[in-house]
Amino acid sequence: MNKSDENGGRFAYEGLDRLMHEKARLSIMASLYTRVEGHNFNELKKLCSLTDGNLSRHITVLKQAGLIEVIKGYEGNKPNTVCRLTESGRERFKSYLTELEQVIRDAAAGSIVETVDEKRGFSPA
Amino acid sequence: MNKSDENGGRFAYEGLDRLMHEKARLSIMASLYTRVEGHNFNELKKLCSLTDGNLSRHITVLKQAGLIEVIKGYEGNKPNTVCRLTESGRERFKSYLTELEQVIRDAAAGSIVETVDEKRGFSPA
Repeated sequence: MNKSDENGGRFAYEGLDRLMHEKARLSIMASLYTRVEGHNFNELKKLCSLTDGNLSRHITVLKQAGLIEVIKGYEGNKPNTVCRLTESGRERFKSYLTELEQVIRDAAAGSIVETVDEKRGFSPA
Repeated sequence: MNKSDENGGRFAYEGLDRLMHEKARLSIMASLYTRVEGHNFNELKKLCSLTDGNLSRHITVLKQAGLIEVIKGYEGNKPNTVCRLTESGRERFKSYLTELEQVIRDAAAGSIVETVDEKRGFSPA
């Protein structure tokens, strides 16, 4: 890539960390972001429409990456596993969201280009 | 999943079509969305910071899905392959963007919860 080109990487969205960008993990992160005290396994399953297996797998990935913590406790007599964002997880998700907002802004700018281009027409040389 | 739970799937983001959500393809779609007449292969490579191989592979996927069209033409004497969104591709990307906006809105609501939760504190029973 020619780094001297000022538009180089303009749409690369390097801030879209693949770890959080994966759809199921984005669901989990967004659920937990909106609730500081976290959610238990069954709540997350419902909120994200995930199967037991899928949810377990993605929780493991997010935990290993230090984005969430998993707290094993009890609700009455029943075991209750609660997931919540770590401080670093919350910060990293915020950065991820900032990049998502950039995608939206770029697209909004695109709607303007659309109008301009109608005047120009399309000529593939 | 208990479908009677009104929060069921609240964070599932079913509208995040995996075809467009994949990071490199999201880059390509966003680049093309902002320019109705499309971009040629080299422009896309730069804008999205992708290698030849990666770009080719993702263009094929997007073309097969009917999201983009690939127009082989000439610029002077040199072959010039231009990619642009199909009408359906533009519509589908718009729907995708609507769902992205929902993620941002949910997160913004989350910042409020954060403040409320500080008062509540965390008690894993």
